[in-house]
Amino acid sequence: MQGRFITFEGGEGAGKSTQIAQLTQSLQAHGVKVLCTREPGGCPISERIREILVTGQGDDLDGTSELLLILAARHEHIRQVIRPALASGHWVLCDRFEDSTLAYQGGGRGGDGPWLRQLGQWIRGDVFPDLTLLLDLDPTVGLARSKRRGGQEQRFEQEALSFHQQVRQAFLQMAQQEPQRMIPIDADQPVQMVAATIWREVEGRFFVSF
Amino acid sequence: MQGRFITFEGGEGAGKSTQIAQLTQSLQAHGVKVLCTREPGGCPISERIREILVTGQGDDLDGTSELLLILAARHEHIRQVIRPALASGHWVLCDRFEDSTLAYQGGGRGGDGPWLRQLGQWIRGDVFPDLTLLLDLDPTVGLARSKRRGGQEQRFEQEALSFHQQVRQAFLQMAQQEPQRMIPIDADQPVQMVAATIWREVEGRFFVSF
Ligand SMILES: Nc1ncnc2c1ncn2[C@@H]1O[C@H](COP(=O)(O)OP(=O)(O)OP(=O)(O)O)[C@@H](O)[C@H]1O
Ligand SMILES: Nc1ncnc2c1ncn2[C@@H]1O[C@H](COP(=O)(O)OP(=O)(O)OP(=O)(O)O)[C@@H](O)[C@H]1O
Ligand SMILES: [Mg+2]
Ligand SMILES: [Mg+2]
Repeated sequence: MQGRFITFEGGEGAGKSTQIAQLTQSLQAHGVKVLCTREPGGCPISERIREILVTGQGDDLDGTSELLLILAARHEHIRQVIRPALASGHWVLCDRFEDSTLAYQGGGRGGDGPWLRQLGQWIRGDVFPDLTLLLDLDPTVGLARSKRRGGQEQRFEQEALSFHQQVRQAFLQMAQQEPQRMIPIDADQPVQMVAATIWREVEGRFFVSF
Repeated sequence: MQGRFITFEGGEGAGKSTQIAQLTQSLQAHGVKVLCTREPGGCPISERIREILVTGQGDDLDGTSELLLILAARHEHIRQVIRPALASGHWVLCDRFEDSTLAYQGGGRGGDGPWLRQLGQWIRGDVFPDLTLLLDLDPTVGLARSKRRGGQEQRFEQEALSFHQQVRQAFLQMAQQEPQRMIPIDADQPVQMVAATIWREVEGRFFVSF
């Protein structure tokens, strides 16, 4: 049986990684085979591309080349990891996917939306999320969480606050346009409460008819 | 004064690097400021992308992601190197450019020509070669030359001979379609004879009216 494809979206520090770990446990407790992965990255060649994206200095990449690298990484991630996992019945939980491209390279950087969608469709083919959980959080709160966590991947964290606010608004608009697929979740709540909200969403959608 | 943009195309071992060095000397002897560069690569971030392209293992990249990486590298190469050099009056000699993409990812890998041209136009903008020298050579001769030279960058050299023959035919067809810009040069001649043919081409085109 074909697995389900669930993506997690939201700004820096919104809790995507944390909530993927929570949902993995809940799904495994229900006997579901889970594969957790992330974008950009998820397979060796795409992780090498991610390296270039997140460690670049200042003006090394403009919006266009950033986009092309992200699409290359996604294409191999889908081809080598996501598609085979779904075909073998795994549920794939993915930390960021195409909505991040539309929100960051479109909303944040002002890229051309229809063109982004045409390119996205070309490299994605028939793989599309069954459910997208949008962890919505004020960027000031999210960036403070991210800073506490630290790490080397600071290229996007260094953008101005206004950039992150544009990204947030772009995500929320996209959720309004596709309310069946993309569900905004209030991420300014304790971890366990966010996890419970997400579980209700997943249970109601995929387990009721089991 | 705006410089000239001259690209060198042709299969593996056709003599592109050798002839760029020859033409550089001739141009400098005429007082021309020359910048030599290459694709994919030509600036630090694009050389990092080149690394991924040329060292990948077997099925790491399919034609689509290969293309996206090449376009990302080209976009930064144009933005950071080629455009500023031309603006400051340098003649830019570039080892491979967009014709290689059309010949390898189109002709060799069977990619969709019109779509490749649309993407190329998008990332290239107004930068287009004033002259393209196509070093035409039987791939069996070229690959033998390349093997003698050695090195780590073997991902394309390992393709079947039929691939290289398709690439050669694609280049020759392109030269027929744009005879003003793209000039086939018989590369199965001694280095100095090829250099003399190229110099006649360049002199006739750019120096006669000086
Ligand atoms: N609901 C929450 N309340 C408070 N802190 C949280 C919450 N969820 C996660 N955190 C903490 O905030 C930090 C960022 O969380 P996490 O790494 O899960 O976010 P993320 O969305 O994956 O971030 P990034 O985009 O940087 O990968 C971590 O230190 C995590 O422990
Ligand atoms: N006209 C020629 N006759 C014989 N050998 C040549 C000629 N031109 C170049 N060579 C030799 O062939 C080898 C390949 O030449 P060169 O590196 O210039 O080709 P290239 O087109 O840049 O190859 P590549 O695509 O691998 O970069 C070198 O060892 C070079 O010295
Ligand atoms: Mg995370
Ligand atoms: Mg060379």
